[in-house]
Amino acid sequence: MEREAAELFEEFKELTASEFFRRNKQMLGFSGKIRSLTMVFHELITNSLDAAEEAGILPEIKIDLKRLDKDHYILRHTDNGPGIPERYITKVYCTMFAGSKFRNIQSRGQQGLGCSGCVLLSQMTTGKPAKVVSGYMEGDQLKGVEMTFKMDVKTNKGLILERKAADVQSTGVSIELHFKDVSYSLSEQGAYEYIRRTIIGNPHAKITFRDPTGHKYIFNRASDIIPPLPKEVLPHPKGVTADDLIFMAKHTDKRRFRSLLTSNLSRMSAKRVNEVEKVTGIDLNKRPKDMKWDEAEEIVETFAKMDFMAPPTSGLIPIGKEQIEKGIREILNPEFVATTTRKPKTFRGGVSFIIEAGIAYGGDSGRMVGDQRKAEIMRFANRVPLAFDQGSCAITEALKSIDWKRYGIRDLDNAPITVFVNIISTNVPYLSTGKQSVAPEPDILHEVRQATMKIARGMQKYLRSKKAAKEEAMRAKVFESLVPVIIREAAVLAEKDVPEYDTVLAKVTRRAKYEEVVQEDVVQDE
Amino acid sequence: MEREAAELFEEFKELTASEFFRRNKQMLGFSGKIRSLTMVFHELITNSLDAAEEAGILPEIKIDLKRLDKDHYILRHTDNGPGIPERYITKVYCTMFAGSKFRNIQSRGQQGLGCSGCVLLSQMTTGKPAKVVSGYMEGDQLKGVEMTFKMDVKTNKGLILERKAADVQSTGVSIELHFKDVSYSLSEQGAYEYIRRTIIGNPHAKITFRDPTGHKYIFNRASDIIPPLPKEVLPHPKGVTADDLIFMAKHTDKRRFRSLLTSNLSRMSAKRVNEVEKVTGIDLNKRPKDMKWDEAEEIVETFAKMDFMAPPTSGLIPIGKEQIEKGIREILNPEFVATTTRKPKTFRGGVSFIIEAGIAYGGDSGRMVGDQRKAEIMRFANRVPLAFDQGSCAITEALKSIDWKRYGIRDLDNAPITVFVNIISTNVPYLSTGKQSVAPEPDILHEVRQATMKIARGMQKYLRSKKAAKEEAMRAKVFESLVPVIIREAAVLAEKDVPEYDTVLAKVTRRAKYEEVVQEDVVQDE
Repeated sequence: MEREAAELFEEFKELTASEFFRRNKQMLGFSGKIRSLTMVFHELITNSLDAAEEAGILPEIKIDLKRLDKDHYILRHTDNGPGIPERYITKVYCTMFAGSKFRNIQSRGQQGLGCSGCVLLSQMTTGKPAKVVSGYMEGDQLKGVEMTFKMDVKTNKGLILERKAADVQSTGVSIELHFKDVSYSLSEQGAYEYIRRTIIGNPHAKITFRDPTGHKYIFNRASDIIPPLPKEVLPHPKGVTADDLIFMAKHTDKRRFRSLLTSNLSRMSAKRVNEVEKVTGIDLNKRPKDMKWDEAEEIVETFAKMDFMAPPTSGLIPIGKEQIEKGIREILNPEFVATTTRKPKTFRGGVSFIIEAGIAYGGDSGRMVGDQRKAEIMRFANRVPLAFDQGSCAITEALKSIDWKRYGIRDLDNAPITVFVNIISTNVPYLSTGKQSVAPEPDILHEVRQATMKIARGMQKYLRSKKAAKEEAMRAKVFESLVPVIIREAAVLAEKDVPEYDTVLAKVTRRAKYEEVVQEDVVQDE
Repeated sequence: MEREAAELFEEFKELTASEFFRRNKQMLGFSGKIRSLTMVFHELITNSLDAAEEAGILPEIKIDLKRLDKDHYILRHTDNGPGIPERYITKVYCTMFAGSKFRNIQSRGQQGLGCSGCVLLSQMTTGKPAKVVSGYMEGDQLKGVEMTFKMDVKTNKGLILERKAADVQSTGVSIELHFKDVSYSLSEQGAYEYIRRTIIGNPHAKITFRDPTGHKYIFNRASDIIPPLPKEVLPHPKGVTADDLIFMAKHTDKRRFRSLLTSNLSRMSAKRVNEVEKVTGIDLNKRPKDMKWDEAEEIVETFAKMDFMAPPTSGLIPIGKEQIEKGIREILNPEFVATTTRKPKTFRGGVSFIIEAGIAYGGDSGRMVGDQRKAEIMRFANRVPLAFDQGSCAITEALKSIDWKRYGIRDLDNAPITVFVNIISTNVPYLSTGKQSVAPEPDILHEVRQATMKIARGMQKYLRSKKAAKEEAMRAKVFESLVPVIIREAAVLAEKDVPEYDTVLAKVTRRAKYEEVVQEDVVQDE
């Protein structure tokens, strides 16, 4: 029985992005009750931090999570960012693939899926609308608006149910969402741990969190420094493809290809353009739309052979080694900590990135498994904690490839240490829409290894001197208990009075490091 | 320095799905040269098999991969399916989130991303248009059309460059695409292995493949049976959410909620609807659009408490244990093979699925690593080989949790076996847009374990009797070499002639199970 094509195509449909993700919510990271709630925290916190920093505001977030029933919660999330102008509110929260971050700029969010994903999940599990209060400046005026809306998945747009002016005291956004089928947990993948890690990666942020039991946690800033504003960085010539050039040419307002190159790429002066023209023989004064694929390809091949300055790194704002140390000390209270921020490098030829790393030993480092502390790997990308998909992540892969025995750690899994790694880039190569793991680019793997090995050497020294001190203390103890016996017995044998030795002994055992071992022998010989 | 909201939102943009994936091609599985090409094979083969089967045609695919230059290929992929009517061609190949498979039906593709993803990758790496020749029936007439087109990512639509009537001999689609930055490989994750596994999971398919060296591989059918047409299955009451009911209510042409329930859900008779009405007290004669969320929720809660027949499984078409065995024998030529197709089960309460498994031992089973054969896990979903993300897949997790020692395999990794697992479902819970791993639903994990342990017992018996036969043969050998000596020595001691013992000895040593071993020895002795 054969059927003809027309019949089979009767069911042909086009979905909107919202409809697609309604059918595939696990692709937004919404799978499992605990993970789903953590992903909601992730998306909302990420957006608040980005917004505040972009506006030059020291971020402060208040989160209130109420449990109404088993697996049924109300989340209220409030920030002190610049707010969202009224006409963008439903676009931000109800249109997927929409956002202000589709630029070559370092930001936590990138995809225009996060906030709308949270609204979708809320709506899918409870049918309840979202409520947003936004305070924002319009010229000199502080405006406030309150809106209640739903997402229309068939059109990928918002449906406003209620709208009124709101009396706000400052700028910022407050969103209230209902969720079912999610679960609050204190586990490593739960929402609480997510906040804790956020503070380590963002010591300039303050987060107040009221948990479902009513307990209020205040995570204070360890630092009052607002990170510099991230800047948009033009793509580097070695990082563009022929398709990128053709795409730019199609959507530019420049009249000549020459000016498109200088204005859309970094490190591309008029002089360099002339060089390209000379090598390729292509007339770069032509209109951008007249650029042919083969020509674009030839230009890209020429770029590959030319020497350029490395991509500008003014757009990359690392946390900084001091800040990371502050964050780690605040949260983990370790015996030992070492941190590093490496110099910018590039992957895929032209995308710059920075690796930062930290190691904490002792105190609250590591994670408790039963009554033992095991190693804990904290992965971050642009300061955002990566909570899931650890196995497939470049950071994990790099850390596992290190020979930890060389650094005094017999078994990475069972050491009481926390390893912190953050990758900063305008284009973090995430492996999936859930943005929970970094693709194993060779240059990234290399840098993570180098950064970690560098600080591991510091830890090795610390562990070595700790071990030496411990052995020393044991030796001193032995000395203190045996020497008096020997002296007394010697006095008896020599038929003399036992001499006064307390002061000498105290001096000897108090003496630091390797000296005293030798010294002791000398004393005994006397 | 604070910036106000309006300024920050100047850059606000909406992307089309094509633009989104152009920026994030790794989310379609296009990362790495080898993987990218394998994903292209995957998407095109998958679509061809689905189309042929839906039309009731025994699938035959011809693939021709030419290397023009290092990392630069032309791929021509031709099938004998029902073809694509002209007006759908650019929709299929240039519009993302579009397709005919957004139904509750078992099919390999599901997302409307595959073919358009291939065109996008081709265009992004070479700037070349796609060329398609489609032959299809329109009424009694065979029509043929040839089109050359590009994808306009800004609109998520096709741009036709050329269109002409084509002289075709039969129905089917032939597509020609150029690729750069991809690589053909014979490795486990390469395109060749992908085809080989496709044949194991689809023994009714024929694939002819000309590789870049010009060598032509013909993978013949091991079976001439066209799989039955998959049928659309209505969702089971235990598998729907309140959101699903509200969504159905919003987009139905039924006048009453009652008839929406009976026509949109399986196992939902008028009698069962009356029961729901009685329990909930909700008037089900109301118009669908008047259904409130709370009511929908109450209805779903009532479903959860009611007993229903399991979901219909007529829509699930497993490969079948005999077919799997044929496929495995054809490709692996093993010493031993056992296969099973389990009864349908459900996950998440109402989504039915079937697990099929096979184990092959010896022959070409396992994969060569150096000069050793190691275990090979072949994962399939709806007959499609899953080539990547093995670590995060439910199938791998289930197999690793089995105590293989109990089945005569000391170390799974180092055994010369191939384990085959296929999950059949109308809704395979994939973990990502690349559809390469299955979510670890507890019911799925359980079934994979059960299926595998069942056939592993068969293998255990085989291995045991193989071992017994070997020991038996050794014992017989010992017997045959020692008994004559003893008899001769005894004769000497007794001062008698050596008696005739060959017949008796042959009889005795032949008593074992594996006669031929003994037979050979007997022959040698003559």
